[in-house]
Amino acid sequence: MQSLPGFRDFFPNECARRNYITGTWRRIARSFGFREYDGPTLEPLDLYRKKNSGGEILGQLFSFTDKGEREVALRPEMTPTVARMLIAKAREYRKPIKWFSIAPFFRYEKQQSGRLREFLQLNCDLVGDDSSAADAEMLALLIETMRAFGLTENDIVVRVSDRRAWMKFLAGKGVTDETKAREVLSVIDKLERDSPEALQAKLAPFGLTLGDLTDFIETARPAFFTALNENLAARGLEGFCQLDLRIVRGLAYYTGLVFEVFDRRQDRRAIAGGGRFDRLLSDLSDGKVDLPAIGFGIGDVVLGDLLADLPDTRAKMEAAMADGQACDVFVVVADESRRNEALGVVQLLRSLGRRVDYPLQSDKVARQFKDADASGASVALVVGNEWPKLKVKDLKARTETDLAQEALADWAANLQTPAP
Amino acid sequence: MQSLPGFRDFFPNECARRNYITGTWRRIARSFGFREYDGPTLEPLDLYRKKNSGGEILGQLFSFTDKGEREVALRPEMTPTVARMLIAKAREYRKPIKWFSIAPFFRYEKQQSGRLREFLQLNCDLVGDDSSAADAEMLALLIETMRAFGLTENDIVVRVSDRRAWMKFLAGKGVTDETKAREVLSVIDKLERDSPEALQAKLAPFGLTLGDLTDFIETARPAFFTALNENLAARGLEGFCQLDLRIVRGLAYYTGLVFEVFDRRQDRRAIAGGGRFDRLLSDLSDGKVDLPAIGFGIGDVVLGDLLADLPDTRAKMEAAMADGQACDVFVVVADESRRNEALGVVQLLRSLGRRVDYPLQSDKVARQFKDADASGASVALVVGNEWPKLKVKDLKARTETDLAQEALADWAANLQTPAP
Repeated sequence: MQSLPGFRDFFPNECARRNYITGTWRRIARSFGFREYDGPTLEPLDLYRKKNSGGEILGQLFSFTDKGEREVALRPEMTPTVARMLIAKAREYRKPIKWFSIAPFFRYEKQQSGRLREFLQLNCDLVGDDSSAADAEMLALLIETMRAFGLTENDIVVRVSDRRAWMKFLAGKGVTDETKAREVLSVIDKLERDSPEALQAKLAPFGLTLGDLTDFIETARPAFFTALNENLAARGLEGFCQLDLRIVRGLAYYTGLVFEVFDRRQDRRAIAGGGRFDRLLSDLSDGKVDLPAIGFGIGDVVLGDLLADLPDTRAKMEAAMADGQACDVFVVVADESRRNEALGVVQLLRSLGRRVDYPLQSDKVARQFKDADASGASVALVVGNEWPKLKVKDLKARTETDLAQEALADWAANLQTPAP
Repeated sequence: MQSLPGFRDFFPNECARRNYITGTWRRIARSFGFREYDGPTLEPLDLYRKKNSGGEILGQLFSFTDKGEREVALRPEMTPTVARMLIAKAREYRKPIKWFSIAPFFRYEKQQSGRLREFLQLNCDLVGDDSSAADAEMLALLIETMRAFGLTENDIVVRVSDRRAWMKFLAGKGVTDETKAREVLSVIDKLERDSPEALQAKLAPFGLTLGDLTDFIETARPAFFTALNENLAARGLEGFCQLDLRIVRGLAYYTGLVFEVFDRRQDRRAIAGGGRFDRLLSDLSDGKVDLPAIGFGIGDVVLGDLLADLPDTRAKMEAAMADGQACDVFVVVADESRRNEALGVVQLLRSLGRRVDYPLQSDKVARQFKDADASGASVALVVGNEWPKLKVKDLKARTETDLAQEALADWAANLQTPAP
C-alpha cells in the first residue's frame, strides 16, 4: 500500500525540511506586517468555473460530487478563495490589507520535474493600494523571502514586467481592443517555448510581426521600472530585479506589474510568480467591492529543489532540519530506584520549555548515552545514586560537572539551545 | 459564493486562534521529544477499506475517482497513514519511535455542535514499547498539552480504562471468543447513550446482564491503574486521571489502555481520545512489522469551544491571538523627503527579525499614528526632518525619546516584544 503518485509522505526528516520552508515563509511575511489567513481545502467547483482564471487549472482539478450532491473541488490555487473572503469582509479591515497564507494545493499534473499533485504554496496579497510603492513592497517581500533561505542575487533573479507597458505598445500598433490585446499577451507568454514560425503565424492576424515584439522587448525602458528600482535601492535590494518584458504571466486577470523568479544558473521552472490584479475583486463582486490588489505565490517544490542543489543553502537547510528535530536534554536514569526523581526532573525541564527525552524502561547507562547522542541533545543529565546531586554531561565536549537539584531550574533557564 | 457547509474560512483573527492551538500542540509534543511527520491529504480509498477501522468513518468518507481512474479519499483520520509509513520504514528508526502530526481531516458528518467536515487534529504515537511507562508517558503528553492552554484538573478529566481488564472479566463470565468479546465492548461503548432495556437485549445473547457490567465498572480496581497513577504522581499530574471502565473506545483495533478527555463541567463530546493498538501494524503488514503502539488524537473543534467558554483559557487565547497578529514597530514617515531613509530603517529592523509596518504613501502624521495603534505595535519610530536622529514613541505610555541612527540596530536588538 503506497501513497498516490504525486503525493508525499513526510517522514520526520522531510517534515523538518517542509517546516523549515514554511516556517521561513511565515517569519518573513510576519516581519512585513502581513497577517495570516486560510480557507477550506475543499471548495465549491463553481468558485473556479466562475473566475475562470485559466483553462489549464480547470483541466487539472480534483473535482467530484459529494454525498450532499454538491459539485466540489480540492483547491488548485488560493486567489479565488481569498477573493471570496475579501469580497465578504474587506470593509471591516483597514487598508491596505496585507494577508498571507501557507496551504496545500492540488492539481492533477503530469508527472514531471518540479511538479507534484499536492504541493504547498505561500500566497501574499496586498489589497487597497495601487501605487508603485505597493508594487515595490511586494517585490521586497518576495526578495526577502528568498534571501532568508540564503539565496543571493547571484543565485536568483526577479524578472519584472508590466502589462500596462504592453497594452500601450499594442495600442500604438493598432491593437486597441482589450480582448485582442489579451490574446497577443498569451502569444507572448509562449515566446520562449514556441518556434519563431509558430509565433509569426499566431501574430499575423493581429497585424504584428515577431520583430515588432522583440524590438519592443529589447529596447523599451518603461518608466515603471525606474520608480520600482529606486524604492528597492533604498533597501539595498536592487540587484535582484531585472526588467524583462517577455514576462506577461498566463492568467487572464493581471492588469499591471507582473513578475517571476528564476534560478540564474539552471533552466528550471519559475520559482515564484505574481502580479497586479486591480479589477478582479470588482469583476467577481459585480462592482460591489472595488479594490486594487497585487499578489504572488511561491511553491515548495521548485524552491526546495534549488535549496537542495546549492551548497550554501543546502547547509543552512540541513542545520535547520537537525535543530528542528533535536532534543535539548536527555535524562539518563543511572539508578533505577531513582526513576521517580528522574521523572520529576524530566517534568521540570519540559515545563520550562526544554525538549527532553529519557529511557522509558531500565537500560544500561552506556546504551542510554547512545540514545542521548541519537536524540540530538547537547547535554545529558544523569540521575543516579548521588541524588539530590545530578551530573551534567556535555555530549560534544564529553566533559562532566555536578549540579545540585535546587540549581536545576536556573541551569535549565540558562541553557543555550537552538531556537524552536 | 460561500464556503461549503462544515468548512471554515480562517480570517486573520480565526487563523491566529488556529495557530495558537496548533502552535501549542507542536511546542508540547516537541518538549516530549516527539518528531513531526505528515502524510498526503488524499489517499487511496483502499487504505481505509483495508484497515476497516470503523464502519462509521467509512460511511463518512469524501471519496471519488480521480482523472487516472484511481479510487481515492480525503483522509478521515491519521492512523492508516502513519501505519503505512511505519510499516515501510520502522526499521530505520531507533525505538521507541515517538511521532506526532498536525493535519486537516475530512468527514462528511451531520451538521452538529462540535463537528465540522474539515477539522484539525494533533496525532501522537509511541511505537515499539508496550510498557506501562509508555502508557504513562502518553497520558502525561496528553495532560501537558491540555495544561499548556491553561486547563486545570478542575476543568478536565482523563477517563482511563483498559480493554485487557474487560477481556479478563468477560473471559471469567464465559465470553472467551475474541470476536464475541469485541461485540460486547461495542455494547459497552454505548452504555451512556442506549436505554437500559436496549442494553439488556443486546447483552442477553452473551449470557450477560447489565448488572454484571455495572458491578464490574463500579467495583473493579485493576492493577494497571495503580502503576499509571504512580508514574503520573512523580510528575505531579495524578489529579487529571480517573479510572472509568465505561470507556472502551469504538475502534476495533485497540488492545489495551484506552482513554478519553472530557470537560468536567459540561456535557460535551470527548475533547481527545486514544489507546493502545499492539497488533495493528502486524495485522496490516501480515506480520512483517510487529511493533506495539499507543496513540491519541485531539481535534481543534471541541477543544476550541472549551477554551472559548472558560474565562481564564479564553483570556490566554486572546492574548496569544493579539500577539500573533501584532507588529513590533511602526515607522512613521513625518517628512516625505526622508522616505528613502525610512525605507532603510524598515529594512534594517525587519532584517533583525522585527515585525515592521509603515505607510506606503504620503499621509498625515496623525493618521499614521492611528495606523500605528491599529498595527498592534508597542512603539513607533518617527523618521522626519531631524534625520539622522529619530524619535521613539512609546504607544502605550505616550512618551517620546530621541534615538540616533547609529544606535538603531542595538535598540532593535534589545526591544522587548512578544515571542513570535
